[in-house]
Amino acid sequence: MKSTIILQESAYERIGKEIMDFQDYFPIWDKLNTIEQNRLRGSLITRNVRQGTLIHNGSADCTGLLVIRTGQLRAYILSDTGREITVYRLFDRDICLFSASCMLRSIQFEVTIEVEKDTDLWIIPAETYQSIMKESAAVANYTNELMASRFSDVMWLIEQIMWKSLDKRVAAFLLEEASIEGTDLLKLTHESIANHLGSHREVITRMLRYFQNEGMVSLSRGTVRITNARKLSQLCDE
Amino acid sequence: MKSTIILQESAYERIGKEIMDFQDYFPIWDKLNTIEQNRLRGSLITRNVRQGTLIHNGSADCTGLLVIRTGQLRAYILSDTGREITVYRLFDRDICLFSASCMLRSIQFEVTIEVEKDTDLWIIPAETYQSIMKESAAVANYTNELMASRFSDVMWLIEQIMWKSLDKRVAAFLLEEASIEGTDLLKLTHESIANHLGSHREVITRMLRYFQNEGMVSLSRGTVRITNARKLSQLCDE
Repeated sequence: MKSTIILQESAYERIGKEIMDFQDYFPIWDKLNTIEQNRLRGSLITRNVRQGTLIHNGSADCTGLLVIRTGQLRAYILSDTGREITVYRLFDRDICLFSASCMLRSIQFEVTIEVEKDTDLWIIPAETYQSIMKESAAVANYTNELMASRFSDVMWLIEQIMWKSLDKRVAAFLLEEASIEGTDLLKLTHESIANHLGSHREVITRMLRYFQNEGMVSLSRGTVRITNARKLSQLCDE
Repeated sequence: MKSTIILQESAYERIGKEIMDFQDYFPIWDKLNTIEQNRLRGSLITRNVRQGTLIHNGSADCTGLLVIRTGQLRAYILSDTGREITVYRLFDRDICLFSASCMLRSIQFEVTIEVEKDTDLWIIPAETYQSIMKESAAVANYTNELMASRFSDVMWLIEQIMWKSLDKRVAAFLLEEASIEGTDLLKLTHESIANHLGSHREVITRMLRYFQNEGMVSLSRGTVRITNARKLSQLCDE
C-alpha cells in the first residue's frame, strides 16, 4: 500500500515537473486563462521518439503540435518518384505546426516529418489546440508567427534553389551541419545530402570529389570531413 | 448652396455603397464587433491602381492589406541580379497579406507586388488591421487561413521547380494564362514568361520554338497563340 502511494506521489511529481517544464517551452502560456491552461495541461502527451521515426506522413494523419524539448526534426517534401528535399529543420524549443495541418483548411500540401535525432517532445492534440485557438486571439496570433517563421524558411529555400548554384548550396549545407553538430567530421552519406538538397546522389558524389580535389573536404565511407572551412565559406559568398 | 448639399449627399451615398461593398468582400465582417467594424470602416482607403504599378516593394514599405474588388496582382521575388519568379497571383476578391508583412515579426523575406491589370482595391492600413487582430481571435484565425493559403501556393511552386522539367512548366503556364484571359491568343513576351517562371528569355524562346515545331503554339511578335491545347495539356500530365 505504502509503495503504491509513493509511486503515485513520485508519478505526480514527475508529471508536475513536466508541466512546469512545458510552461517554459510554450512562450504564450501566461497569455492563456486558467481554463485554457487546464485544458492544454490535461491534453498533453509526452513522447520520446527515436531517430529515423516518421512522425507525420503527409495528410495521412494529424498528430498535433509538437513542442520539442530536446532533439532534431526534419520536414521534407517528396516527389512522385521518391526524391526528397528538406524544407526546414526544427531544434530544441521549436514548435512543429504542420504536424497539425488538419487544423487549417487552407493548407493544401503535404510535408513529412522525420526524427533526425532522438527527440523528447510534447504533443498538443490538434483538436485541443484548435479549440483554444478559435477563442484565444493570443494563441491565434502566436500560430500566425509560427507559420510566418516557417514561411520565411520556405521562401529562403526558393531563393536558394532558384538563384544559387548547387556547389554553393552543398558548401552551405556542410557548414550548417558542422555548426549544428559542433564538429568538422560529419556522418553523412551522399544520398542523405542529396535528399536534403533535392538533388541526386551521383551529382552530390561528383561535387564532393571536386571539393576534395580543391582541398575543402576529405571523404571516407559515410563521412565528410571539412578540412578548409574558410574556403567552403568563401565559395558560398562568391 | 443647393448643389453643394447634393454633392455631399451623393458623396455620402457613394461612400456608403463602397462600405456596403467592402462587407461583401471581407468574409469575416460579421465576426467583428461594432467597435471593430467602425474602426475598420473609418480606416479604409479606396484605390484604383494602373497596370504596371509596383504596390509593395520588398520591406521598403508596409502599405497594408489589399482587398481586391476587381483586377489582378502578381507577387514575385527578385534575385540580386534582377531575375524574377512569380510566387503567386491574386484576383477578384483575393486579399493580399504580404503588403502588410511588417505586421508579422517572423516574416523575413521580401516580395514585390505588381499590378498585372488595372485594379480596384481597398487598403486596410497595417496598424488598423494589426490592432484589431491583436484582440480578435476571429481576425487572427482568418489571417492564419490567408497565410496558409499563400503557403500552399509557395509549396506548390517548390514542387514545380524541383520535380517538373521546364517544358511542362511552360506548357502549364500557357494553359493557365489562356484560362485567366479566356482566350488562346496570349499577349506575352518571352521575357515576361521567363520572369514568371524564374527562367531566362533565351531559354523560353528556344522552348516556344520547339512548341511551335510540334504544332502546339504559333508565335508572332509579342503574342503566343495556343493552337493545340490538348497536346500542351498532355505534355503537362506526362
